[in-house]
Amino acid sequence: MLSKKKDKIINDPIYGFVTLENGIITDLIDHPFFQRLRKISQLGLSYLVYPGAHHSRFHHAIGCLYLMNKAITQLKNKGHLITNQEAEALKIAILLHDIGHGPFSHALEHSIASDISHEHISSHFMQNLNAQFEGKLSLAIKIFKNKHPKKFLHQLVSSQLDMDRLDYLKRDSFFSGVTEGNIGTERIINMLNIVDDNLVVEEKGIYSIEKFLIARRLMYWQVYLHKTVVSSENMLIKVLKRAKYLMMNKKVIFATPSLAIFLKNNFTSYDFNKNPDLLLNFSELDDNDIYTCLKYWKNENDFVLSNLSSMILNRRILKIKVQKNDFNQTEIDEKVNEFSKKNKISNEEAQYFIFSNKVSNSTYNIEKSNINILMKTGEVIDITSASDQFNIDALNKTVNKYFLCYPNILLF
Amino acid sequence: MLSKKKDKIINDPIYGFVTLENGIITDLIDHPFFQRLRKISQLGLSYLVYPGAHHSRFHHAIGCLYLMNKAITQLKNKGHLITNQEAEALKIAILLHDIGHGPFSHALEHSIASDISHEHISSHFMQNLNAQFEGKLSLAIKIFKNKHPKKFLHQLVSSQLDMDRLDYLKRDSFFSGVTEGNIGTERIINMLNIVDDNLVVEEKGIYSIEKFLIARRLMYWQVYLHKTVVSSENMLIKVLKRAKYLMMNKKVIFATPSLAIFLKNNFTSYDFNKNPDLLLNFSELDDNDIYTCLKYWKNENDFVLSNLSSMILNRRILKIKVQKNDFNQTEIDEKVNEFSKKNKISNEEAQYFIFSNKVSNSTYNIEKSNINILMKTGEVIDITSASDQFNIDALNKTVNKYFLCYPNILLF
Amino acid sequence: MLSKKKDKIINDPIYGFVTLENGIITDLIDHPFFQRLRKISQLGLSYLVYPGAHHSRFHHAIGCLYLMNKAITQLKNKGHLITNQEAEALKIAILLHDIGHGPFSHALEHSIASDISHEHISSHFMQNLNAQFEGKLSLAIKIFKNKHPKKFLHQLVSSQLDMDRLDYLKRDSFFSGVTEGNIGTERIINMLNIVDDNLVVEEKGIYSIEKFLIARRLMYWQVYLHKTVVSSENMLIKVLKRAKYLMMNKKVIFATPSLAIFLKNNFTSYDFNKNPDLLLNFSELDDNDIYTCLKYWKNENDFVLSNLSSMILNRRILKIKVQKNDFNQTEIDEKVNEFSKKNKISNEEAQYFIFSNKVSNSTYNIEKSNINILMKTGEVIDITSASDQFNIDALNKTVNKYFLCYPNILLF
Amino acid sequence: MLSKKKDKIINDPIYGFVTLENGIITDLIDHPFFQRLRKISQLGLSYLVYPGAHHSRFHHAIGCLYLMNKAITQLKNKGHLITNQEAEALKIAILLHDIGHGPFSHALEHSIASDISHEHISSHFMQNLNAQFEGKLSLAIKIFKNKHPKKFLHQLVSSQLDMDRLDYLKRDSFFSGVTEGNIGTERIINMLNIVDDNLVVEEKGIYSIEKFLIARRLMYWQVYLHKTVVSSENMLIKVLKRAKYLMMNKKVIFATPSLAIFLKNNFTSYDFNKNPDLLLNFSELDDNDIYTCLKYWKNENDFVLSNLSSMILNRRILKIKVQKNDFNQTEIDEKVNEFSKKNKISNEEAQYFIFSNKVSNSTYNIEKSNINILMKTGEVIDITSASDQFNIDALNKTVNKYFLCYPNILLF
Repeated sequence: MLSKKKDKIINDPIYGFVTLENGIITDLIDHPFFQRLRKISQLGLSYLVYPGAHHSRFHHAIGCLYLMNKAITQLKNKGHLITNQEAEALKIAILLHDIGHGPFSHALEHSIASDISHEHISSHFMQNLNAQFEGKLSLAIKIFKNKHPKKFLHQLVSSQLDMDRLDYLKRDSFFSGVTEGNIGTERIINMLNIVDDNLVVEEKGIYSIEKFLIARRLMYWQVYLHKTVVSSENMLIKVLKRAKYLMMNKKVIFATPSLAIFLKNNFTSYDFNKNPDLLLNFSELDDNDIYTCLKYWKNENDFVLSNLSSMILNRRILKIKVQKNDFNQTEIDEKVNEFSKKNKISNEEAQYFIFSNKVSNSTYNIEKSNINILMKTGEVIDITSASDQFNIDALNKTVNKYFLCYPNILLF
Repeated sequence: MLSKKKDKIINDPIYGFVTLENGIITDLIDHPFFQRLRKISQLGLSYLVYPGAHHSRFHHAIGCLYLMNKAITQLKNKGHLITNQEAEALKIAILLHDIGHGPFSHALEHSIASDISHEHISSHFMQNLNAQFEGKLSLAIKIFKNKHPKKFLHQLVSSQLDMDRLDYLKRDSFFSGVTEGNIGTERIINMLNIVDDNLVVEEKGIYSIEKFLIARRLMYWQVYLHKTVVSSENMLIKVLKRAKYLMMNKKVIFATPSLAIFLKNNFTSYDFNKNPDLLLNFSELDDNDIYTCLKYWKNENDFVLSNLSSMILNRRILKIKVQKNDFNQTEIDEKVNEFSKKNKISNEEAQYFIFSNKVSNSTYNIEKSNINILMKTGEVIDITSASDQFNIDALNKTVNKYFLCYPNILLF
Repeated sequence: MLSKKKDKIINDPIYGFVTLENGIITDLIDHPFFQRLRKISQLGLSYLVYPGAHHSRFHHAIGCLYLMNKAITQLKNKGHLITNQEAEALKIAILLHDIGHGPFSHALEHSIASDISHEHISSHFMQNLNAQFEGKLSLAIKIFKNKHPKKFLHQLVSSQLDMDRLDYLKRDSFFSGVTEGNIGTERIINMLNIVDDNLVVEEKGIYSIEKFLIARRLMYWQVYLHKTVVSSENMLIKVLKRAKYLMMNKKVIFATPSLAIFLKNNFTSYDFNKNPDLLLNFSELDDNDIYTCLKYWKNENDFVLSNLSSMILNRRILKIKVQKNDFNQTEIDEKVNEFSKKNKISNEEAQYFIFSNKVSNSTYNIEKSNINILMKTGEVIDITSASDQFNIDALNKTVNKYFLCYPNILLF
Repeated sequence: MLSKKKDKIINDPIYGFVTLENGIITDLIDHPFFQRLRKISQLGLSYLVYPGAHHSRFHHAIGCLYLMNKAITQLKNKGHLITNQEAEALKIAILLHDIGHGPFSHALEHSIASDISHEHISSHFMQNLNAQFEGKLSLAIKIFKNKHPKKFLHQLVSSQLDMDRLDYLKRDSFFSGVTEGNIGTERIINMLNIVDDNLVVEEKGIYSIEKFLIARRLMYWQVYLHKTVVSSENMLIKVLKRAKYLMMNKKVIFATPSLAIFLKNNFTSYDFNKNPDLLLNFSELDDNDIYTCLKYWKNENDFVLSNLSSMILNRRILKIKVQKNDFNQTEIDEKVNEFSKKNKISNEEAQYFIFSNKVSNSTYNIEKSNINILMKTGEVIDITSASDQFNIDALNKTVNKYFLCYPNILLF
């Protein structure tokens, strides 16, 4: 027996034992950029509704890696060529696909940095790591950016049926306890195949795909866009917006160093390109910065900052009304007026507590990317044609829900 | 502490501990009519595809009882009146709702007795038990037959969301290992409510209902109407039809006494009404009669009887082709001719091995009974209107699949 | 892509998808000898207490095969040589290890054939299949009989930690709903290693082994030797003994042909060796023969035969008292006298209803075979020394429980 | 229907739906003292080994409440008197039993405040809440402190079989993925009974108790005292000790306000009694304070503080050796010398990186409290006598393991 360093085995409550191959995979996992994901929650403030939902982006990334291994084995068994280099690159790409997420992604993406998506930042991290690892990530980056000639490899990393979705739906369902969101991950992977360099699902898997789409929809409305979650995450957006407003106007408030730099500036992707230190700054940010700031902020003088912070910390969430149509502006204005008068604050300040917006979800969006079914006849058709059940118009329709957040009058 | 007889507790791999209240409930369970359900498999020959699917109708009935208890508690908590008598009657009704099932229901219903449904026979059993139990089942029978003024009680026993379906989908999914068929039983029951004497689901439960409908559809096509299951169950129908044909033509073949009586006669519901002993005969029938006969029959002289019996026993299932349209009669005739010539049998005999038919399923059938959603506004509307996802036309559409069974030429 | 016949995939509610490799493995599974195991229940009459426990020996054998694949992969990853031939032989051996089981093994082994164990009959089946498969099972048979030079291969098939036990404890726990009997199968397999041609468990697995031993003990007393199960299985032994007595004394009672031959004769292993047809006869026997005979027998004239048969069928189980010491013979004799007088039968006949015996279990039995732990130091020691918890004397002690079965006086 | 405020329903991935009764229970849960538990992890740094182990003390407390409801129902069904007031008090007591936990309890208890246990602080919180809730917690406090005449009520809150243990073993097993630690919570609760005002387990539950003890032991060594967890938690203890040393010596280092106060002072229980504000300070502390400080500290000048902080954050854990006997002091001294020379630091500083200590666990400790079994004979005896398996000496033995932590030489 060789005394080579052994693979690591991790317990996953979902998949059982997960093996991490010794080498670049474990080296990347050990890197501080990746370890940071342990402190970034996958589901933001959803734990306020689902107390089990404290799982981290670290755990999700490991889960994706596990599924990618399964998918690679499956496709190779079906006779498709995936070289060892490509297999390693696929694993690296899926491991790092979310590395650009900041704490409470939505809040950060909307309130702090301006026009930068987490995919964009993921890409920066990968470049940086590629330099540190002497080019060993080059192929992974090509696949991630869909610049590798074999298109289906990219689809395993990013598409309607990528390993990301297959893991997060299962994982979020598991930890939230919303068992109905569970999906047949293993079966779907068993049904994957490749036709003309495109990922397809074999006909036998149609019902699993239908169920996947319905489960995804259920998870959106029941968990990700649960109204208490929407309200609390919007409160977080508002409190960060307020902090940024105050800091940019030279008010002295506390902020952890890594967060302060993003509150004092309006960085764009241009800045990330120009200034490599910015990425290091970003890599220091995690959920703890936000919670620690909220704890300081609740004692600051500013009415908006202190009240919103204390409300989030103690789970006194703004009331929220949801409806199919936009809210009447007069109704909103009245609430704003009443609240500002009562608390002797300006209307601008009141609008941090009373605001309207919409959330949207589309079960399936054929325009972006679609799910192809390989029929027994050899034909490849879209799931909306293959299923005798789904109606393409209903599936493609984007469902909008409008919401209005406002304070419970008793609280103030 | 009183020394009263204790309730029984049973382990259910699905629900954990299930309590059976001492009294009429345990007395009914102990009755031979009910104990017989232990030897009638819930899923017939599905175990040929799903080796775990050996669970019995006995177990399913106990599961229904468990869910009924949950539903009663839930509805009473919501302020609806269910008297103790009604609660007991509901439990009796759901416990006995399937007591009229014979072995391999479909085979029996098609091949042996003529125009009698299992519901009809359940009803006979209940009357018989009611006499034995001195009228204590009267209210249960009224509810079962929908003759009790409170309609919602019947709906708990028989409707699109009755405890029967909620249990069997969950149970069949569990034992077959088709985890994707699992449904949110507990959540659906929590969302039940009553409006105008009708069972409704609260708006928050819409996504659970969507998932329930899709899971049900998945279970139909993937388990209940799995093509190997369809082929083997049709073989069973054919072999019983052949046995009946032979016996009615005075050929001497073996049959267990309980089965023999049904093979030698063409009973109708008229006979069940007239002759009470027939029910006792029926109550002696279970899966073992069928298997034992198949073992004898495989050694009989008749080509059809012996070959079909041995094929079922050794899982040499007829090949099956499935398509959306009806099969071409010429194609069938050719196969029949070829097979009869090769084996020196008549065309009539060959048709026991080569035959076509169709299977159908409709996800939702508004004409029979529907699922009502109680909106937050107080309005009650049908799920197809309440869901922004489902399209009523797609849902209501009956999906037909045509199949053709025929022997693998190599086998003969 | 080659058009080679595809591997089969089966759903197992416990392990998920199980792959059956096309070739000799699927050929053996398709053989009538193996298909017969579908109709032999793994847990006999335990379903009278645990209604979910209807799983078959077929299903268990498939589960063992799955675990054997895992173990082979694990040991090869650790650098141990297992050739492809040996791997195939291991799979064949574990697949067929229980093929000699008859219906309700204990009843058959005690009441029908005389001195033949199921291992002995398994061995006959393997020889027979080896002839049919032109010698392809030779290595499997050598391993099964521990005649292959590599001892550890046999230990994977038969030892304290063989794949048989690892599967049946998990499976019986799952289907009975006795969740506490669940064991860490996957972890134990991950901890397997080989030292000096012996299967050992790495030190990290000590706690898993402790838990395995305790779970096994729990399953024995709570399921396999549950007092209602003990009583009902002893009733079955008695009824078969009675049937045999009657048939050997030329009384005409019904019996299915496959069972009749074993009731009319006292076969020994000598007969199995001499007469090859006997194995074929045996291969026709399954649970259905027993149940069908019970249904006939309950209407026979013989007091013992008819009463015991009807009691088993309707779950009117003899009362059972369990104690640590042997029962007083006078107490038994009194009950026998009273019962024979009351029912006007002989004392011999009464003893079919009133009898005493003992059941035994030893958690661990160092004399038969032991569990070796590979310490981090490289030393290999027995689990009873490796664990700071277990006390070898307590572990090795055989626990005896004496039981007395007798009729509830009210029933007669 | 009354329009009374509805009970809340929470999804728990372990128990399914958990109902929180509207009234004092939900009022206590909504209180900031309790909401704070959402940000205190149940298992400290265990997630470094088990990535799923991010569940909070909040979630655990809700789980205990759920089990307490089950236990109350069960005991009342068995005829024991528990008044409505007592039932409410039991629920309050178990909900709040852990409210005195600080972040990373062990680290805090050892490194910050001096002689104060978390039970002591829990007690302070309860008194404080009792004042806020106008005496409504008085009975709960009496039960918690075992000053209520009915002793068994206290035993439900604190004993070898309290609801705390039954929940945490199950929950920690679930989230860590160490499935072998799972216990038969539901069955154990079903087997609870009361004899002479003492909680006992009915004889039928002996095997469940054996399994509970073995599972508990497994969880201790495999999770709570896993060597990587021990090493990382000791690093945390050391870094906090260092921070305290620096602050008490007037070095200026960052600390969040709530943590700073505990680092600058050596509070004892005397201070908590004297100064009510101290409790409020404590109530502001959670895991985020620790993580935020570590992030600041890793950039401080102090060699010890910065290195330990960065190591914990990036999971570069000190190596750890475990053995049955104490480590040789010479071996330790040599490592200290070498390390201090290499890094030009004092021996005192080097001892923050190289240190030895022991961890202990006893499966069962009869001296503290025991598990009583109610035999069928009516006798009550200790589990060690009731079980024919366990050996009292082995069970009671405290197992000590000595460990030595030291840096991987390559890291420095």
